[in-house]
Amino acid sequence: MTAVHIVALGGGSGTRFWPVSRRSRPKQLLALDGKRTLLAATFERVESIAPVSSFWMVVGDEYAELCREAVPEIPAAQVLTEPQGRNTAPAIALAALHVKRKAEDAIMVVLPADHAVRDPKAFCAALKIAVKLAELGPIVTLGIEPTFAETGYGYIERGAADPKAEHAFAVKRFVEKPDPICAQAFLARGGFSWNAGIFVMRPSAYLAEVQRQLPELHAALQPVAAAIGTPAYNDALATAYESLTPVSIDKGVMEHAAEVAVVPVECGWSDVGSWNALKAVSDPDHAGNVIHGNAVVVDSNDCVVYSGDDQLVAVLGLEGVAVVHTPDATLVVPKKRAQEVREIIARIERQGWQRYL
Amino acid sequence: MTAVHIVALGGGSGTRFWPVSRRSRPKQLLALDGKRTLLAATFERVESIAPVSSFWMVVGDEYAELCREAVPEIPAAQVLTEPQGRNTAPAIALAALHVKRKAEDAIMVVLPADHAVRDPKAFCAALKIAVKLAELGPIVTLGIEPTFAETGYGYIERGAADPKAEHAFAVKRFVEKPDPICAQAFLARGGFSWNAGIFVMRPSAYLAEVQRQLPELHAALQPVAAAIGTPAYNDALATAYESLTPVSIDKGVMEHAAEVAVVPVECGWSDVGSWNALKAVSDPDHAGNVIHGNAVVVDSNDCVVYSGDDQLVAVLGLEGVAVVHTPDATLVVPKKRAQEVREIIARIERQGWQRYL
Repeated sequence: MTAVHIVALGGGSGTRFWPVSRRSRPKQLLALDGKRTLLAATFERVESIAPVSSFWMVVGDEYAELCREAVPEIPAAQVLTEPQGRNTAPAIALAALHVKRKAEDAIMVVLPADHAVRDPKAFCAALKIAVKLAELGPIVTLGIEPTFAETGYGYIERGAADPKAEHAFAVKRFVEKPDPICAQAFLARGGFSWNAGIFVMRPSAYLAEVQRQLPELHAALQPVAAAIGTPAYNDALATAYESLTPVSIDKGVMEHAAEVAVVPVECGWSDVGSWNALKAVSDPDHAGNVIHGNAVVVDSNDCVVYSGDDQLVAVLGLEGVAVVHTPDATLVVPKKRAQEVREIIARIERQGWQRYL
Repeated sequence: MTAVHIVALGGGSGTRFWPVSRRSRPKQLLALDGKRTLLAATFERVESIAPVSSFWMVVGDEYAELCREAVPEIPAAQVLTEPQGRNTAPAIALAALHVKRKAEDAIMVVLPADHAVRDPKAFCAALKIAVKLAELGPIVTLGIEPTFAETGYGYIERGAADPKAEHAFAVKRFVEKPDPICAQAFLARGGFSWNAGIFVMRPSAYLAEVQRQLPELHAALQPVAAAIGTPAYNDALATAYESLTPVSIDKGVMEHAAEVAVVPVECGWSDVGSWNALKAVSDPDHAGNVIHGNAVVVDSNDCVVYSGDDQLVAVLGLEGVAVVHTPDATLVVPKKRAQEVREIIARIERQGWQRYL
């Protein structure tokens, strides 16, 4: 079987888990389940598909050290850093160059580093189908079976069944985040999956699409490719990134790629997008409360009660509220409005309280 | 005019302001308004009645140091410590012995050290009336005009107007904390005041009542009185307190005292009994939120948002909730249920988490 390489993308500096996530420690570096970081869990769940010697990550310069600490078994040379964030198309192109150089015939599995999966077995089974299909040429994406009319994700509409693999389909179209009416319609009609940003392909197949659709990106990265393994690498990388235009793999590559397939999967996937989604990584108690750290929970249901290991949160008489304690900052918000933490971050910035971010 | 001595009782170790109040720092030592401790404010508001050289406090041994720090201008010899808490009757008797020895003819004003008063002028005017009346013999108590049917306080029923002073009345009876029906009836009928634990009297008048009604307490304190100012004092105090039965001034002395008067007063008094009463010391903003420390308050009304000076609490979408942050513990509770913090304390104890108390 072809060698499989895993590439975790640890890009975002997201603030949706503030006050636990901070600029210095973004979401993928949080152990939201109290055991391992989302980044480490991303690798752990695919250990049956690839050995640790084939693990890679692409991370911002400033997080490289913390990412290495979070997954110490990863080969140091396979922690690829980006001088600036340029969205996913360049990050995956950078990884493709490195993986291709290391293993010409490899298949590359690209995974966001900050998601959760309840059923890793089903997830890996789908990835194996995707890997087999990718060996034949196309860029394959995993499509998450939608469970409700989410408007926060892009969707993938399936076309005909792919004759070359079971449980695989042609892609009819990629749809950007829909409005609520469209999302409802997608769910009702069927044949739509959530786009989870999971891609499986030969590096050469991806780079060929980049060359065709994003020729400037391809050209800018050529000096980087030539400098891999030489002292000139960092300078070449800095020069290239300086000039790059940010573009996502979805917009820049997938929407118009020549050969694309989707493998639908039900695996308890979550992008763990806010405190409201904490149940994706941590089981609620009998009253529906998800608890982390020391807690006294009296007469309260359906809450998130979160603190550090040697800290205490006490709640009484609450319903559907997230309470998140850190030593210097606490957040309290109804779970359903947890995504509005963005407004709080904006106000903290306006107040000049950067020390809390 | 007779010399007036102020005695602040800083007894309780109360937990009603947990997690800000801890065993090591009870309520009277909190600066709930962000400016001064309740203890310091207790003295400040009566500065027009007595000089600091006539200020006294009675506190538990373990809090003596913090109390001295909170009111550094108080003469060191006038910080009276108790080896154990024995409720108010012994604490006031101890103060009476000391004040009497220092100033035979003084009037003693006994004040709980953890209350708030919005209108110190009205408060002091009432105290002045009480002082004048006490010079003639009776034990005088201030009666707070009730503003609602509170069941958490004792009540004082007024009798006939006292011919010896304006705005003073005989006391018909002291009533223990009533049930809600009685409290409503008191309010409807009028002539009832809240018992705020504020007493004005000659030390000798109080000690005479103690001798008559609590002869064991009186006898036990004689060796202490004899040892004041000698090296034997601390041992005498320890021996006496060891044997004392706890008893309140209300039950032990006032209910059956021979000569008692009440001076009703409207002065914005509060016993600051829970987080729900924080508005008694700190003004709410336009949305009814009482805020202490750094706070981001979005779309929230009628909340208490409390943290230390260099800490941040962010709330969004809350109504009538108290959020209290400390570095190692946070409390979130609907304001109306703030007194149930007792249940939380009990659970913390059962969990063996004494470090948070």
